[in-house]
Amino acid sequence: MKAKIHITLKPGVLDPQGKAIEGALRGLGFDTVSDVRQGKEIVLTLDETDEAAARAKAEEMCKKLLANPVMENYAIEITA
Amino acid sequence: MKAKIHITLKPGVLDPQGKAIEGALRGLGFDTVSDVRQGKEIVLTLDETDEAAARAKAEEMCKKLLANPVMENYAIEITA
Repeated sequence: MKAKIHITLKPGVLDPQGKAIEGALRGLGFDTVSDVRQGKEIVLTLDETDEAAARAKAEEMCKKLLANPVMENYAIEITA
Repeated sequence: MKAKIHITLKPGVLDPQGKAIEGALRGLGFDTVSDVRQGKEIVLTLDETDEAAARAKAEEMCKKLLANPVMENYAIEITA
């Protein structure tokens, strides 16, 4: 199964990468952009064949390594 | 309107970050993970109020700055 993990900064957490992208876009003349937030999308290929088992494993990976609980939120999508 | 840009490496392009995550996960005992790919998710807040105009603007931003056409694919989601 595949697990797609969407990791985003929690609201209120400063996003320097987002600010840099926003500045670069404005520099290119894109003046209708008012806010930019950058997150990560991690796609894992797992040997688990059962959705619940794959979700539980992905959840554990997020807690132990992939997401920083202080600053980041994560969402898990499981696909066959 | 909000534009969510999903940027992923093209198949076949080496993903060193993905490899590093895979190694770290295995080091933590997660031995059922066989492949890891990392991409970016950029959320833009745009002043455009029309979906087609927002999509066209986001497309232009991807082509000019956000995505590297040689190594990356991008997909655009527009939401109110």
